[in-house]
Amino acid sequence: MTRQIAVKALGIGKNVVCEKAATTVDSFKMVAAARYYPQLLSIMGNSLRFLPTFVAMQKLLVEGYVGEVQVCDVRVYGPSLLDESYGWTCEELMGGGGLHTIGSTIIDLLSFLTGSRAHRVHGLLRTFVQQNLSIRGIRRVTSDDFCFFQMLMSGKGSSSTGVCCAVTLNFNMPGSFVHEVMVVGSTGRLVARGTELYGQRNGSKNEELLLGDSGWSGPNVKAMPLPQIQGLSSMVKTLRQSFQAHEERRSWSREPMAMAPTFEDGLYVQTVVEAIKRSSTSGEWECVEIMREEPDPNHNLCEALQRNKM
Amino acid sequence: MTRQIAVKALGIGKNVVCEKAATTVDSFKMVAAARYYPQLLSIMGNSLRFLPTFVAMQKLLVEGYVGEVQVCDVRVYGPSLLDESYGWTCEELMGGGGLHTIGSTIIDLLSFLTGSRAHRVHGLLRTFVQQNLSIRGIRRVTSDDFCFFQMLMSGKGSSSTGVCCAVTLNFNMPGSFVHEVMVVGSTGRLVARGTELYGQRNGSKNEELLLGDSGWSGPNVKAMPLPQIQGLSSMVKTLRQSFQAHEERRSWSREPMAMAPTFEDGLYVQTVVEAIKRSSTSGEWECVEIMREEPDPNHNLCEALQRNKM
Repeated sequence: MTRQIAVKALGIGKNVVCEKAATTVDSFKMVAAARYYPQLLSIMGNSLRFLPTFVAMQKLLVEGYVGEVQVCDVRVYGPSLLDESYGWTCEELMGGGGLHTIGSTIIDLLSFLTGSRAHRVHGLLRTFVQQNLSIRGIRRVTSDDFCFFQMLMSGKGSSSTGVCCAVTLNFNMPGSFVHEVMVVGSTGRLVARGTELYGQRNGSKNEELLLGDSGWSGPNVKAMPLPQIQGLSSMVKTLRQSFQAHEERRSWSREPMAMAPTFEDGLYVQTVVEAIKRSSTSGEWECVEIMREEPDPNHNLCEALQRNKM
Repeated sequence: MTRQIAVKALGIGKNVVCEKAATTVDSFKMVAAARYYPQLLSIMGNSLRFLPTFVAMQKLLVEGYVGEVQVCDVRVYGPSLLDESYGWTCEELMGGGGLHTIGSTIIDLLSFLTGSRAHRVHGLLRTFVQQNLSIRGIRRVTSDDFCFFQMLMSGKGSSSTGVCCAVTLNFNMPGSFVHEVMVVGSTGRLVARGTELYGQRNGSKNEELLLGDSGWSGPNVKAMPLPQIQGLSSMVKTLRQSFQAHEERRSWSREPMAMAPTFEDGLYVQTVVEAIKRSSTSGEWECVEIMREEPDPNHNLCEALQRNKM
């Protein structure tokens, strides 16, 4: 429904901040609508970019703290993402699963941090827990609770070999979330553990704390890692600034929102997610090819038929 | 040279504890020799199995601490493994590189911990640092300093989907080694951080320390993670027990050495290492097929020719 609501809202002149779409085709239609109404704000809710930890990390990367970036290594571990009762979170085709829910925010974050995009991806998805106390009988979970994927980012220079990203997501680990993003480069490394940022240059003996925990007074959502919630909060604050900058609050200032993920970023993320899913089925590296043309109107039907065949 | 020395030593009636061979063919010849002299001790120097941390971990896994094993997640980070001057450590074909040096001990450890073997593997190797202050001019490092690989282990039961293993090795991170082995199962998890063992059952809120650091009084080898050195020390102690059990010290007691990796384990590890290297080139999942017959005498020549073609 994300696509229908987003496109309709833009059509009646509303600014739109929205969650990811369920498919690439939906994402593409959102991009088309956003292009059609350039005066309206249209951003994705991938809020990790707004978290001060990652704002600082990106700044340090640009300043050359780690030298040339070689490897990004991300892990998110935590409890099950499934709802209490059967619903879309259990269903892969409806956008459930660790890759779609959390993985997509990581894909967006890594393109923000490295300033480049994945051109080839490889992944493996698993559903270890297919039934539990509340989802049983004829019902089965089809969305992934474990996923690892690798992304080869396109190199910026001609000499560069490009960054390798490895991401591990595991949601069979009750307890608190582990949310770690590490970037290793030729002269040092940066690690964001939760909302804290650490760094170590190759010469020095120990890690240094670059940004401490700011103290979170908001609610603790059980089913979401803290960096995601705090990022959302930071994004809302930035949005407020953006609208307060103009007196009438009917238009908005572009500058604070410049780093927000656009619908185009949303299409990229959705394309990578689908390429990883394809790779998990095919076992091969899959190319990330961004959709450039409105798909055939029968596409959805064909896709549904093909899926049934598989 | 490992193969020649090992096979010759067995031939003149010596017990053999040795490092890994450089190729599968060499490993196979060592297996053949070990089978020919069953009275002699013939074990591989993959010493992680002997480290008390992993002995305890394996015991807890058998006792069902984590329930059914789902995922093994391993990371080893540290400084460069290259020698000061140009030598075999720089050369992939001579057995240099993170995968061959450290990865092989992890592959052996994971088959020890899970009690199963990899049947399909996928990997990616990179040499980020091809030249440094002492290796330069026309010389280039060809051995990997970064590697991640995945192994799908064969399931034990018919219902089991098999364990997924993900391993990340990165030797572009000067400072002390990070050596972490995590096993996640349906009812809990075990994590070995360095030589300490932690566990958490799904019901409980916090990790518990299951085995503390025993305090290491031996030397700190700069180019090797501590668990590997301590494991070696444990293995030597076990070897002493094994020989002290018999008065003359010319024969040895099999019982303490029962868990030692045999030459057959060595052949398995070498086969996985080569499959991962193949996968890094082909980009595809590669099957792990253990050599069962003496290879064609021209095999080495053919292999060399093929390599040159590539």
